[in-house]
Amino acid sequence: MPELRKDPVTGRWVIISTERRKRPSDFRFERSAAAGNEYCPFCSGREDMTPPEVLAYRQNGSAPNAPGWDLRVVPNKFPALKVEGGLDREAEGMFDRMNGIGAHEVIIETPDHTKTLASMSEPEIERVLWAFRERVRDLRQDRRLRYILIFKNHGAAAGATLEHAHSQLIALPIVPEYVREEIDGARQHFLAKERCVFCDIVHQELAAGRRIILENADIVALAPYAPRFPFEAWLLPRRHASRFEEAPRHEYESLARLLKSVLLRINRALESPPYNLIVHTSPFSEDTGEFYHWHVELMPKLTKVAGFEWGTGFYINPTSPEEATRVLRSVRP
Amino acid sequence: MPELRKDPVTGRWVIISTERRKRPSDFRFERSAAAGNEYCPFCSGREDMTPPEVLAYRQNGSAPNAPGWDLRVVPNKFPALKVEGGLDREAEGMFDRMNGIGAHEVIIETPDHTKTLASMSEPEIERVLWAFRERVRDLRQDRRLRYILIFKNHGAAAGATLEHAHSQLIALPIVPEYVREEIDGARQHFLAKERCVFCDIVHQELAAGRRIILENADIVALAPYAPRFPFEAWLLPRRHASRFEEAPRHEYESLARLLKSVLLRINRALESPPYNLIVHTSPFSEDTGEFYHWHVELMPKLTKVAGFEWGTGFYINPTSPEEATRVLRSVRP
Repeated sequence: MPELRKDPVTGRWVIISTERRKRPSDFRFERSAAAGNEYCPFCSGREDMTPPEVLAYRQNGSAPNAPGWDLRVVPNKFPALKVEGGLDREAEGMFDRMNGIGAHEVIIETPDHTKTLASMSEPEIERVLWAFRERVRDLRQDRRLRYILIFKNHGAAAGATLEHAHSQLIALPIVPEYVREEIDGARQHFLAKERCVFCDIVHQELAAGRRIILENADIVALAPYAPRFPFEAWLLPRRHASRFEEAPRHEYESLARLLKSVLLRINRALESPPYNLIVHTSPFSEDTGEFYHWHVELMPKLTKVAGFEWGTGFYINPTSPEEATRVLRSVRP
Repeated sequence: MPELRKDPVTGRWVIISTERRKRPSDFRFERSAAAGNEYCPFCSGREDMTPPEVLAYRQNGSAPNAPGWDLRVVPNKFPALKVEGGLDREAEGMFDRMNGIGAHEVIIETPDHTKTLASMSEPEIERVLWAFRERVRDLRQDRRLRYILIFKNHGAAAGATLEHAHSQLIALPIVPEYVREEIDGARQHFLAKERCVFCDIVHQELAAGRRIILENADIVALAPYAPRFPFEAWLLPRRHASRFEEAPRHEYESLARLLKSVLLRINRALESPPYNLIVHTSPFSEDTGEFYHWHVELMPKLTKVAGFEWGTGFYINPTSPEEATRVLRSVRP
């Protein structure tokens, strides 16, 4: 059973995922590249290599767990968390733990092994966003869960172990540290100003213009003022709303369009780097409607100096967001 | 001039280090391995390849910036921060920035290119710790500075760009986020219990024994209850004290001894992995004497899945600390 443990100093929860446990010898031979398509379990025709699907978009009434799909969502074969059982919160002396209850799913974005999120059509990308929405709306009915982390690792250096285009979601009985910080920061701003801090950022940045990468009717893509990573980009809806899964359809459509443009520009400017994409949305367990603002963060993995930042939470970024904006605006995708 | 910028949502400061700025094309060809010794600027006889030394331990009265040293401290040739100038705190609308005032120094641990921290003698390791102490005591006289981050990246995958054994320190006009969280957490515990949370951890862990890797008269090496990384290890002094730079000499001696043993065991069990070492000590700007407890954190870099954790601050660890302890105790270094 995976386990959630809380650090007694910082209050940070970590998953000790015993089911995925590696022996010391396993660490010696980490794969350095993502697996190719020869034995890809995410390709059409290999549906029996994954656990049974929990959602699929299919054409012509094709049968579940068989070819004929455009997108599939399946439980992770090596889940960090499991749905069955109780939380069993308990103490070990001064320490706190609970069972690793939750869900860990994979969104297989396309049956085509050669496609990437950037090379998919806008409707195909919109379909991926719609799948995120549907899974969140289903999983949030489980009252044990407090947060769903939706993310994508693209490329081996960004943590992807399979090449075939996919995203993941992890549904958690706790609110992760970085979400906590964001929520608390946004609440502080609201208490002081009675305005959403993200709305303030969008307004100020649109007026200044220097860090606006692209925009359309619903979504603004900007380089944040204090980026942790070179070419970090945030995609924010203009309309204030705290929950990704309650957006109107046209916002997913606009987000798909802008996301594709930004990814194509990043690919062009930086030679298709690995990247992480993370959906930032409100926890289920609290009412953040007035002060939190859902958005998507995109972080190309350009520097290898991971160690220092991992250990310290302190970031040194060699590229200013103004320069990143200039570069991304000027390339022709 | 490097710049410090504050994220308006989370309050996290980042360094935008314009002096080390890379053009987009520079990101395409990151070196995948640390540089070898052919042109090593840290080797004896190459003192003119570094900025002039700010501290050196020398034998036989040898001249500064010439051979004959056992350890040298020099300013980083590509510093993330600079000593000259004023902080010039200012606003850009809702954003906050200041000049990147501070210091960025390199501790060259040995003149011998072939040595590593693990293969040095105990007195040599103690000398490194003593150099940390001396540099902190010198730099803390600058009232603009609030924190000194002392860290070591060993191996290219942990962020080292030069192979020759070295550590770094970054003196900052702000308190980094991870230090803030630790300090705040420790303060909360003290307010509730009137005890130091780290002292509580040491006592409970010594009584339980399951996560004690090694111990000696002054220092305890343990696997933390909620580790972010496989084989993460903390080395804590038994005696409560908040500041690394005020420890008595025998604690550095004991720390050097235990650090060497732990590193040798990690090297043996995990085939000499890259790692990060970070000294956790109190900020200068506040009185944490009652509730904070200095210590050293050691994080082998065993997994390549960096992206997810970077973006989310959320950690999935496939190895329990009990298992890591068992492995490290059982190997013969």
